[in-house]
Amino acid sequence: MESIDHIAIAIPQAEAVSLWEKLLGAPPFHVEEVPAQGVKVYFFQVGPTKVELIEPLSPESAVARFIEKKGGGLHHIAFYTENLIEEINRLRDMGFSPLQDTPQPAALGKQAVFFHPKTFTGVLVELVSFP
Amino acid sequence: MESIDHIAIAIPQAEAVSLWEKLLGAPPFHVEEVPAQGVKVYFFQVGPTKVELIEPLSPESAVARFIEKKGGGLHHIAFYTENLIEEINRLRDMGFSPLQDTPQPAALGKQAVFFHPKTFTGVLVELVSFP
Repeated sequence: MESIDHIAIAIPQAEAVSLWEKLLGAPPFHVEEVPAQGVKVYFFQVGPTKVELIEPLSPESAVARFIEKKGGGLHHIAFYTENLIEEINRLRDMGFSPLQDTPQPAALGKQAVFFHPKTFTGVLVELVSFP
Repeated sequence: MESIDHIAIAIPQAEAVSLWEKLLGAPPFHVEEVPAQGVKVYFFQVGPTKVELIEPLSPESAVARFIEKKGGGLHHIAFYTENLIEEINRLRDMGFSPLQDTPQPAALGKQAVFFHPKTFTGVLVELVSFP
C-alpha cells in the first residue's frame, strides 16, 4: 500500500459541498457523476491526498441508504497501490477477499475493489490503482 | 489546511491491530497510551499520511461509547496545519467553532482541537499542529 488515495465522506445534499470548501480553503478540483453507483463525487486536493464528497443522486444508491441509516459522515478509506492485482492476491493469500472478483472502473480514471466493512473492523476499505 | 495528518479508526480490542498490520503490510511505528482520553493509539505510516487505530482502555471513554453505538470503524479525520491558531481564527470568522477554547495536547507531541460532527456533515474533524 503506497499511500492513502482519498478519504470519502457521504453528504446528504450538494449544499454541504460549500461547508467543506470553507474548511479546506479551496473548491473541489474535480466533479464527476458516477451513474453506475447513483452518485456525484467532488474531489478536493489536500496536500498529497484527496477528500472525496459523495452525494447520492438516487434514493436507491448504497450511499443514500448509508446516509439514511447513519446521517452522513466518513464513508470509506481508499488506499493507492501501484499493482492492484498483486495487492489483491497478497491479501487473498491472508484470507481477505474483496467484494468484486475483478477491479471495477472508478472515479478519476482509476480502477478499484472494495472490502466489506466486517473484514477490517467496520471500515469500508477501497484499493485503487491506474488500469 | 496543508495535509491530512491521519485517519483515525476505532477498534474494539488490541487483536484488531494485526488485521490492519496485514492490510497495510507493516507494523505500527508508534504506540502510545493517552490516559486523559482513556485510549491507546497505534500509528501506521502510509506514504505521507498516517492511519491511527484507537483502542478504548476504559468503558467510559468516548471511543468505547462510539464502538458500543456503531461497532467500530472510521472515527475522525485529522488535518495538519502549520499555524493552528490562525486556522482556528479563520474558521471562527466563518462561523465554525471548535469544541475546545484552546489547543489541547495530542499524540505524537502535537496539539489539537476538534469540531463537533454536526459542524461538518457528520464528520468529527480534528486540526493538529506542532506546538
